[in-house]
Amino acid sequence: MIYETVITTMNPDGTVHIAPMGIRHENEKYLIAPFKPSRTLDNLLHPGVAVINATADVMVIAGCLTGRHDWPLVPATHIACKRLAGALSHVEVRVESSKDDELRPLFTCRRVHAANHRPFRGFNRAQAAVVEAAILVSRLHLLPEQKIRSELEYLSIAIGKTAGENERTAWQWLMEKVENYYA
Amino acid sequence: MIYETVITTMNPDGTVHIAPMGIRHENEKYLIAPFKPSRTLDNLLHPGVAVINATADVMVIAGCLTGRHDWPLVPATHIACKRLAGALSHVEVRVESSKDDELRPLFTCRRVHAANHRPFRGFNRAQAAVVEAAILVSRLHLLPEQKIRSELEYLSIAIGKTAGENERTAWQWLMEKVENYYA
Repeated sequence: MIYETVITTMNPDGTVHIAPMGIRHENEKYLIAPFKPSRTLDNLLHPGVAVINATADVMVIAGCLTGRHDWPLVPATHIACKRLAGALSHVEVRVESSKDDELRPLFTCRRVHAANHRPFRGFNRAQAAVVEAAILVSRLHLLPEQKIRSELEYLSIAIGKTAGENERTAWQWLMEKVENYYA
Repeated sequence: MIYETVITTMNPDGTVHIAPMGIRHENEKYLIAPFKPSRTLDNLLHPGVAVINATADVMVIAGCLTGRHDWPLVPATHIACKRLAGALSHVEVRVESSKDDELRPLFTCRRVHAANHRPFRGFNRAQAAVVEAAILVSRLHLLPEQKIRSELEYLSIAIGKTAGENERTAWQWLMEKVENYYA
């Protein structure tokens, strides 16, 4: 089972790297498989800690894919890292082992702390549509334009019917990236 | 903004009615618009209380649409009602006013209590696909078979890639209902 989350890790210069990522977990073990090369990969190798943020704010996910990397952070409590201030919940993890791979090395992480900050309010179809669109946007170079456009058209229905302000903004950011890509 | 939740209300005989429903809220006001006729509508008219359950267990949503109405409940704390035992969070509300409508009367409800029970773990694409499929299944009599089948085929991709056991079971229940409908 894959959860779409936002991973925060520490860069060597003390800044925080924020990256949307699908992760898996088995009880207290969390499996993170960042692409090679990537900043998240480097930071999981050293210093080897991360926060897995569960946010319902799809602006963070769409923002990170469209050059908007500045999101409010607060310190983690059990590791030297930061978390998204707006996360509904977060888990602080330490890398236990890693398995190299040409495409996506796999990190097995141990949970050292977890906290539940705000209630989940229910499924929102527009949020799910933004998540799907974000995945399409991350694969613009891999998929045919016609497939991208027809799937976005389908997803846009849920935006029109069920979005709030954040979802509409996130959707607009992604659509601008699509149009710029094909322009 | 519409959240897909599960509403629990009290039947006259003391049993609990469980119904998946999209709701809206504005600060502490919750807007519920059940279809006419429906048990939820009757129970909002009298006794006029409800619990809005936010669950990530899509088996409850798919189950209620496929004749599986027996889900674990526990008492609400501030109103004479019950909530889903497995809800991530819940809100207890009391009807403040209602506006009749031929299709969907609108109830404005006041929050009297809210509780956050378990952490949201992140978006799961398979859960979102089950929610979309559940909406399609509730509209089998309104939509052309070809549209239903092509959308389900698209949604099934996320099931194959990101589902856990609950999502696969929920998906299977919905697909059985589709096949029975067209058989």
